[in-house]
Amino acid sequence: MSTTVSPLAPTSYPDMPELKGVKFATAEAGIKYEGRTDVLLATVAEGTSVAGVFTRSKCPSAPVDWCRSRLAGGTVRALLVNSGNANAFTGRKGMAAVKLSAEIVAGALDVAEEDVFLASTGVIGEPLPAEKFSVVVEGLKTSQGKATWLDAASAIMTTDTYPKVATASVDLDGKTIVINGIAKGAGMIAPDMATMLSFIFTDAAIAPDVLQALLSDETPGSFNAITVDSDTSTSDTVLLFATGAATDSGVDPVTSLDDPRIGILRTALGDVMLDLSHQIVKDGEGARKFVEVRVEGAKNEASAKKIALAIANSPLVKTAIAGEDANWGRVVMAVGKAGEPADRDRLAIWFGDIRVAVEGERDPDYSEEAASEVMKCEEILLRVDLGLGEGAASVWTCDLTKEYVAINGDYRS
Amino acid sequence: MSTTVSPLAPTSYPDMPELKGVKFATAEAGIKYEGRTDVLLATVAEGTSVAGVFTRSKCPSAPVDWCRSRLAGGTVRALLVNSGNANAFTGRKGMAAVKLSAEIVAGALDVAEEDVFLASTGVIGEPLPAEKFSVVVEGLKTSQGKATWLDAASAIMTTDTYPKVATASVDLDGKTIVINGIAKGAGMIAPDMATMLSFIFTDAAIAPDVLQALLSDETPGSFNAITVDSDTSTSDTVLLFATGAATDSGVDPVTSLDDPRIGILRTALGDVMLDLSHQIVKDGEGARKFVEVRVEGAKNEASAKKIALAIANSPLVKTAIAGEDANWGRVVMAVGKAGEPADRDRLAIWFGDIRVAVEGERDPDYSEEAASEVMKCEEILLRVDLGLGEGAASVWTCDLTKEYVAINGDYRS
Repeated sequence: MSTTVSPLAPTSYPDMPELKGVKFATAEAGIKYEGRTDVLLATVAEGTSVAGVFTRSKCPSAPVDWCRSRLAGGTVRALLVNSGNANAFTGRKGMAAVKLSAEIVAGALDVAEEDVFLASTGVIGEPLPAEKFSVVVEGLKTSQGKATWLDAASAIMTTDTYPKVATASVDLDGKTIVINGIAKGAGMIAPDMATMLSFIFTDAAIAPDVLQALLSDETPGSFNAITVDSDTSTSDTVLLFATGAATDSGVDPVTSLDDPRIGILRTALGDVMLDLSHQIVKDGEGARKFVEVRVEGAKNEASAKKIALAIANSPLVKTAIAGEDANWGRVVMAVGKAGEPADRDRLAIWFGDIRVAVEGERDPDYSEEAASEVMKCEEILLRVDLGLGEGAASVWTCDLTKEYVAINGDYRS
Repeated sequence: MSTTVSPLAPTSYPDMPELKGVKFATAEAGIKYEGRTDVLLATVAEGTSVAGVFTRSKCPSAPVDWCRSRLAGGTVRALLVNSGNANAFTGRKGMAAVKLSAEIVAGALDVAEEDVFLASTGVIGEPLPAEKFSVVVEGLKTSQGKATWLDAASAIMTTDTYPKVATASVDLDGKTIVINGIAKGAGMIAPDMATMLSFIFTDAAIAPDVLQALLSDETPGSFNAITVDSDTSTSDTVLLFATGAATDSGVDPVTSLDDPRIGILRTALGDVMLDLSHQIVKDGEGARKFVEVRVEGAKNEASAKKIALAIANSPLVKTAIAGEDANWGRVVMAVGKAGEPADRDRLAIWFGDIRVAVEGERDPDYSEEAASEVMKCEEILLRVDLGLGEGAASVWTCDLTKEYVAINGDYRS
């Protein structure tokens, strides 16, 4: 763990409203870290719906395989998350460890093994000592409900420099329903640390297929629109739980995407997901600047996103931003390499409000001084108009600093 | 230009044999640099064939557009290359500058404007002051043949820390024919400097379509199999010239790919291209280690190359190599993110001769000490066996160091 908090960390945390139907407990299992919590147990009410999206890696971790196979069942009672060991690339030992983990939790809570979801984050390639969970599971059981949202977010941190929480409340049927989420660190972080994890809960009752559709729809614009170093973890996991506790106060279950309340739910969920994903970027290794790359005027949305990612992943663009250099030549280069339709002579590029290039040339009115002022900011909007169509997309990234190389190039401890 | 020569620079240069039918001259036009040559004029014999491969960027530079359109004609008499300004993203001014450049050279040499090929490398987005060529063109004309291959390679350098030359000689029809090449720097180099350029010459007589086929065939395994920072220049250009001067000593022209001499020619050309492309990687910004990423056992060759590039372009793999860390977990991550068929539990990974992972787990015989010895070397082979098929491919890259960030993050001068 870094001892220096990211300069882009939030200055305060939101008050997280109570969310009925979920309880947290944390413990120190000593998986890898000393003197801090490294296990989170979340228990959810019977009848809770669950949806998930996972890494697209062809070499996923054992817990990702486990969760994927459990999603089909549609039922869930508990979620166990550990930090310090990702249980990734651990072969048959990895599957044995997830099985043992689920057994330990199921036994203690008297629920079905199939209803225990699992996530792990930390070192790759080391066997996960799942037997350590048996030492702490009784304590986790008896202290259910004692851990706060911030406690939960802290227990799942690896090299994160701050815990990440977000919340939204909306009115459904004249009652307030809540969506609370936690997340941990982006990128394949410091030596061997993997994984972007996020767990989001709502007390609304939402049918599993509707829940999955909402989560899948909101992922491309949030968690799949951020990049720290273009690397994809073996363990990325987002789970969304709907406890349904709000039905007790008279909120009708949502059972169809045609429900008129879907729009407001979708917006609130999207806001929470976007908030958490931005917090992840702001905690990118060595990050000093938070950058929105906005591409407009593309042939279509997919093309816009591909170009935006090419810009956001370019080491040359990211080092230029670290150097506070409005280096639009590198942006042109990145547009060109994306392989998507682009016409050099229609391109226009802005840093903040400053148009630096237009119609294939440096903007004649371009002021180096004004652009430099923009580049000094902590948050920067880099906007590209391709002038070809209506496609638009945003992605979010951070700069590439010497600290990134130092963090990732230090010898594995 | 850097004042520190890459630690991976060659310790000596080959003797470059005379190659009839091509003459070099260099000059100081003061495009951007002071006190060094920045223009190369190569003149070639009448009847010389020419072939080319260019950047796949959708935003190519004006000289790339020019060369592409000239290739169709199939004739060439001169090549003008300048360093210091890439004439890229310069709009209509860019096309005017290439036209003026060709006019100046054509007028001085009394050749057709269409027979003048052009390449530019350096700053992006600044208009190229092509009129400066008119000041030096008479001197270039009268000094034709005075510049050596090393002089030629030096005149086209931007942030390269050493000139790049390579040569091969082979027997055709009992006579020696020569292939000589020069190249300049990889990657989108120091602030705003673009372009990988290479110019290769042979005195063999080779028909244009055969020449193009040979060049196109040998490019994927050489210039298109290297990566410094995954970024693609707007200006990448490789031109291959066959002067045909060897026909004077009795070497019959090569007019078909079925010619029995094609094999030996192809091998020699491939060797020169691979040599030059490796030199480019070894001069990557901040490079301290030269890495071959070899992927075997893939479904097919294309899949192997895609996975190899995913590994070679991963900032996390590259920083680990900079830190001399045999971090195979990051290699697994990069294999997984490539999106190609891969089975976690069949993967094996070697650094040098040390197998660090096998069948989806850390190799039980893995010695951290032995792996550390491998990682201390200047040249490292990183080998992955997917265990799925017969597809194999190699790509070459360098490590990602703090110097890379420093070079590319300094404020644009």
